[in-house]
Amino acid sequence: MSGSIFGKHFTVSTFGESHGPAIGVIIDGCPSNIPLSKEDIMKNMVRRKPGNTKIATARKESDEIEILSGVFEGKTTGAPICLMIRNEDQRSHNYDHLKDIYRPSHADYTYHLKYENRDYRGGGRASARETAARVAAGSVAMRILDELGIHIKAYTKALGSIVINDNEIDYNEIANNLLSMPHAQKANDALKLIAQMKEEQDSIGGIVECQVTGLPVGIGEPVFDRLDACLGQAIMSINAVKAFEVGEGVKASSMKGSTYNDAFYTTTELDHYGEANYKSHGFSGNAHPLCKRVLKHTNHSGGILGGLSDGSPVVFRAHFKPTPSIAKPQQTLNHNLENVEVSIQGRHDPTVVARAVVVVESMAALTICDLLLRGATSRIDQVKAAYQH
Amino acid sequence: MSGSIFGKHFTVSTFGESHGPAIGVIIDGCPSNIPLSKEDIMKNMVRRKPGNTKIATARKESDEIEILSGVFEGKTTGAPICLMIRNEDQRSHNYDHLKDIYRPSHADYTYHLKYENRDYRGGGRASARETAARVAAGSVAMRILDELGIHIKAYTKALGSIVINDNEIDYNEIANNLLSMPHAQKANDALKLIAQMKEEQDSIGGIVECQVTGLPVGIGEPVFDRLDACLGQAIMSINAVKAFEVGEGVKASSMKGSTYNDAFYTTTELDHYGEANYKSHGFSGNAHPLCKRVLKHTNHSGGILGGLSDGSPVVFRAHFKPTPSIAKPQQTLNHNLENVEVSIQGRHDPTVVARAVVVVESMAALTICDLLLRGATSRIDQVKAAYQH
Amino acid sequence: MSGSIFGKHFTVSTFGESHGPAIGVIIDGCPSNIPLSKEDIMKNMVRRKPGNTKIATARKESDEIEILSGVFEGKTTGAPICLMIRNEDQRSHNYDHLKDIYRPSHADYTYHLKYENRDYRGGGRASARETAARVAAGSVAMRILDELGIHIKAYTKALGSIVINDNEIDYNEIANNLLSMPHAQKANDALKLIAQMKEEQDSIGGIVECQVTGLPVGIGEPVFDRLDACLGQAIMSINAVKAFEVGEGVKASSMKGSTYNDAFYTTTELDHYGEANYKSHGFSGNAHPLCKRVLKHTNHSGGILGGLSDGSPVVFRAHFKPTPSIAKPQQTLNHNLENVEVSIQGRHDPTVVARAVVVVESMAALTICDLLLRGATSRIDQVKAAYQH
Amino acid sequence: MSGSIFGKHFTVSTFGESHGPAIGVIIDGCPSNIPLSKEDIMKNMVRRKPGNTKIATARKESDEIEILSGVFEGKTTGAPICLMIRNEDQRSHNYDHLKDIYRPSHADYTYHLKYENRDYRGGGRASARETAARVAAGSVAMRILDELGIHIKAYTKALGSIVINDNEIDYNEIANNLLSMPHAQKANDALKLIAQMKEEQDSIGGIVECQVTGLPVGIGEPVFDRLDACLGQAIMSINAVKAFEVGEGVKASSMKGSTYNDAFYTTTELDHYGEANYKSHGFSGNAHPLCKRVLKHTNHSGGILGGLSDGSPVVFRAHFKPTPSIAKPQQTLNHNLENVEVSIQGRHDPTVVARAVVVVESMAALTICDLLLRGATSRIDQVKAAYQH
Repeated sequence: MSGSIFGKHFTVSTFGESHGPAIGVIIDGCPSNIPLSKEDIMKNMVRRKPGNTKIATARKESDEIEILSGVFEGKTTGAPICLMIRNEDQRSHNYDHLKDIYRPSHADYTYHLKYENRDYRGGGRASARETAARVAAGSVAMRILDELGIHIKAYTKALGSIVINDNEIDYNEIANNLLSMPHAQKANDALKLIAQMKEEQDSIGGIVECQVTGLPVGIGEPVFDRLDACLGQAIMSINAVKAFEVGEGVKASSMKGSTYNDAFYTTTELDHYGEANYKSHGFSGNAHPLCKRVLKHTNHSGGILGGLSDGSPVVFRAHFKPTPSIAKPQQTLNHNLENVEVSIQGRHDPTVVARAVVVVESMAALTICDLLLRGATSRIDQVKAAYQH
Repeated sequence: MSGSIFGKHFTVSTFGESHGPAIGVIIDGCPSNIPLSKEDIMKNMVRRKPGNTKIATARKESDEIEILSGVFEGKTTGAPICLMIRNEDQRSHNYDHLKDIYRPSHADYTYHLKYENRDYRGGGRASARETAARVAAGSVAMRILDELGIHIKAYTKALGSIVINDNEIDYNEIANNLLSMPHAQKANDALKLIAQMKEEQDSIGGIVECQVTGLPVGIGEPVFDRLDACLGQAIMSINAVKAFEVGEGVKASSMKGSTYNDAFYTTTELDHYGEANYKSHGFSGNAHPLCKRVLKHTNHSGGILGGLSDGSPVVFRAHFKPTPSIAKPQQTLNHNLENVEVSIQGRHDPTVVARAVVVVESMAALTICDLLLRGATSRIDQVKAAYQH
Repeated sequence: MSGSIFGKHFTVSTFGESHGPAIGVIIDGCPSNIPLSKEDIMKNMVRRKPGNTKIATARKESDEIEILSGVFEGKTTGAPICLMIRNEDQRSHNYDHLKDIYRPSHADYTYHLKYENRDYRGGGRASARETAARVAAGSVAMRILDELGIHIKAYTKALGSIVINDNEIDYNEIANNLLSMPHAQKANDALKLIAQMKEEQDSIGGIVECQVTGLPVGIGEPVFDRLDACLGQAIMSINAVKAFEVGEGVKASSMKGSTYNDAFYTTTELDHYGEANYKSHGFSGNAHPLCKRVLKHTNHSGGILGGLSDGSPVVFRAHFKPTPSIAKPQQTLNHNLENVEVSIQGRHDPTVVARAVVVVESMAALTICDLLLRGATSRIDQVKAAYQH
Repeated sequence: MSGSIFGKHFTVSTFGESHGPAIGVIIDGCPSNIPLSKEDIMKNMVRRKPGNTKIATARKESDEIEILSGVFEGKTTGAPICLMIRNEDQRSHNYDHLKDIYRPSHADYTYHLKYENRDYRGGGRASARETAARVAAGSVAMRILDELGIHIKAYTKALGSIVINDNEIDYNEIANNLLSMPHAQKANDALKLIAQMKEEQDSIGGIVECQVTGLPVGIGEPVFDRLDACLGQAIMSINAVKAFEVGEGVKASSMKGSTYNDAFYTTTELDHYGEANYKSHGFSGNAHPLCKRVLKHTNHSGGILGGLSDGSPVVFRAHFKPTPSIAKPQQTLNHNLENVEVSIQGRHDPTVVARAVVVVESMAALTICDLLLRGATSRIDQVKAAYQH
């Protein structure tokens, strides 16, 4: 396992198994002098926390973060930040009956063959519990992005066949329901679907959509570390994600260029980044360079052109498969490769999307923060600014 | 631009602009003693080459590869391999009328703001010409995978609304048409659609699907460098890709667990990797461990469980947007942010998918080769084997 | 601070300040199935531990390691290993009088200007306490090297002007004195020198030499990640090291080629790696290929040729400056850039070398382990061996 | 060979063998808008070029650089810069008599065992010819450093036992002799020593010293990527270097703290960075913060404190062993492990230091440029400056 490090400049290194002593993360490359408190992190941790029996596993975890380093007198010092969360309500014995079973659509079989060594307790390293460390790190990234006026918001776009159309989205509703759905009625329907799934001892997939606003033009590094490519890795690395779309996504493959292309136009209305963008054009002869802002009539591109942010909101979607752990009996194999029937007991979510919303936001924040810091020296004038202010 | 390096162990570093002197790539970390000839590379280069006027730009490039290092007496030496391709038919003057135009859905605007410096000739670094270097490097990766019995095959799954269903695929047809479509009649229909697009001065999107067979179980590095995550970055980094799917992909988000989960079973029929897989279990009490092979009744997972290859074919799809360069007049802005109308002349493909098939294969090969080499020390017995043969 | 990660394949990421809650490390890329206990680590930790008042600071730290992840039922699982050490005897108030002082030859001034934020308590991240995390990680690396028959041994070669000549070394003495010196009488003299330094409120420098045996031929990656280059970074990154030498080291610059060059010869006596080395020649026509072993009459190269291990013992030296913290009054500046006199009270070692011996071993182990794992795929036959055993 | 990439942010990837078609380098992460011409590079290439028969190999190489990418209309574009040099005067047949000989103190033996494949022509990848690519890349780094007022100057400090003491250095002499020695008489003596070595069919080692001025305080990334540690790797990775010293270097190990420590003081005289340094203190209450500059009475530290540049000149030394290729007969082995005598004919330098001076400068420039770009986001105010100018 040499893949637990993410990012090249703002680098996070995670550790921990579902039923080991603790999980956590080290962040290396965080700039100094960013105000950071435990509360900044906990407010996101609670969004991912298990324990709401309506939609999630009954496992009780306080997910209490301990900041072990890198923060002094309420500010980041520039040193690595280590965030640790003790595992508490482990009930490893719940997994004794699965000790030598390869659960369908789980990582049991592939990990066992790769490492010839299996931590069977709750999925070990492959458990979704690992994403708690991502949320902890993502919270620090979001604090940095806050400082630059960049905001990330994800929500449940669909649960099973209950889909919220673009024109139906009501952002104010997101906080009003357990599923973070931007639509009151559909959130209600979705909760009923979840109840039904529990009754049927089954599970259901869903879609999380994410929007990033306030991003300067030009974030992303050609050609392999494009913003969309890095987001692609980040989002596909979340447990249970099977597809990633940017902007029109899968629809783009059946569209014509004349319909798909986003036409540019200008406006005199300025936003947070308007002025900076124009200055960076180096205009001087132009009469009113600072009074214009480049916009697009449509955003089929999802805010990314040539792999770089284009000033429009960055929009992407993650498709989650249904939770693989279901109580309904399934055929599978054990370590002796004998056919066995398994009914996965224990405490499992009927859907992963509800708790995954904040994980998607976190991975987006980590990706953007890394690219933003790397992009800070794209031009020699930026390098000079860093050392001569 | 600090993103032109891909891979952590089998590392490729590409260079070159559409209308500069040359493009190319250095491969660092290639094992020694792999037979490698110019022909191994050229056979893939011709599949990507422009010049077939029916489906592609009329730009003429021989795409003749020069091997500058790393190969001696027909074999890789372990030293970095540099592959260079001279640019020939550049016609940079074709781009003079676009010199200060931000073409819609192109990278002109974002690159200009990021670097305050624009190589307007044919898109510069953002041009799809850059993918020639990927194919060159990918060809070396494919030679390595060949040695291990791993094979990669991509094809055009859809062009616009012409979609080939899974049960209609005829692999033998792929080589029979310019679009690499595994279906004779639909390939014909697709060629007609392309002719229509040219007539309408428009372009069309499409889907490339890719299958990887022969992969040992366990390729991929948890948790961020999962096989699906790394493929996600690799494929999303290809120009014009807007979505990436593994296995069921976007369909997974509306499925139930009981339907989605792939049930394991065993067979006594052995394939190339069967024996190795069983040995790696360390079975000894079992009566016939080597006579069984683990299979799945379905492959909704697309051959990846927990981010690791599961022994089934790895299946993924890339959704390409329509070519952004169209002759049909479009509204846009120039460098002075004045509204202008642009009709993009020059030599452009009405669709990118035909030539992208081998690019998808190449990026898959680079990704898998990198993860395969990294995974070669997952267990201490593998480390010992490397030094005690 | 984006530099707390070491290694490309066997990757360690450290965290922690001298007076923060804890210090520690994550190891990513450790192969599975290596037996690892807390004792394997603690036996090295005690060698670095403060508390022996004769030679070291009186700070009391149990340096009790907690294994937070990556080990299950006594073996590594392949997952990231997090090792944490709580800070205990911090006495941060001891540093109140230094709060706004730039101590001479310390990192106070440079950190303050770089981060504009200073953790003044005991040096913060720049404290030698950080090396405890290196020893913890190095202990894991040493366990891996043990499995391959590779052994690392460091010792104090000199303290001030007390130098042990090559022909005086008695390895059996190393464990018999607090300074890890391979010479009984000189160790005694050195302890007296330390007592004198304490009395004079002064400190003294020294040399640590390290030998690595059992290394296969060919460890190191040309051209930048040569074994000597990577050791160079590793050793120079230890606090207080001002010079690094391999083999003849500084003497080489005044030597002639005819004197310096090491002549090869063969022997029929086999050692641990003899057989493997010959097999790797691929000899078959040769009568007795396995009965010969390549040796050198001298080892001026220090066991490294062309940046790769050559089968001889790898020998290198680290020169440590005297401890910068001395009680003797010194001239310096405070944060207001006023001239002040400072006498550094607190608990400081009169020399750093005694406790640095195990740190040198640890950094050597981390370096070699990283290069050894990277080198495991140098040839295609090694790659095949990894997947076909 | 997975080690041909250097740097994490300003990344160079080199390729090429001594007698292959070409050698070269790709630079990824170079900021845009830096004026760069072929002459900027050639002026350094000529300093490394072979052909001066008095001190160097008679091999004739024009070392003509071709800029293949990344520069448009005289400025860097931000895209990867590929620099290529064709090999010309190869005379590979000169090496036929060495085809199956393991030359003493060369990389022949270690490469052969590692890769089981040997490019015997002139040392292949292990040849010092590879350093030409480093000088090409280093020249680009020096252009960037120029923009920031940072200057690097190396010279030959010693040849054999002819050593120039610190108080004898006359910088004006460096350009006046073939050996880049800052002392007229000793340069003369050294040339005579070289003539003698040629006559004796022998070779001689030497010391290159390097000084970096104008560096802002705080360059270097704790804890592993300290400036001294990164320089250590960079310099030790140069062929034939056996020791690396910073500041007092090896002398530090026999010094007392009271003698070694550098005392800080202030001056009212401002230099290039004086103002910036004070501003970065954030002083406001202080009466004349901008009229002071922090200096040290001595520079035993070599300009580095806690691994970060401290505002004093950075001073380090590289010790080069004598050229291993000598005509004097030597005992060695061939591929069959038979004892043979070898007299290395061909065109070899009697010392490597003369041509290595510019290689040392280049590696210093690459190291500093990488750390400088990485350090540009150490504080949140630097990040903001990059995006809000």
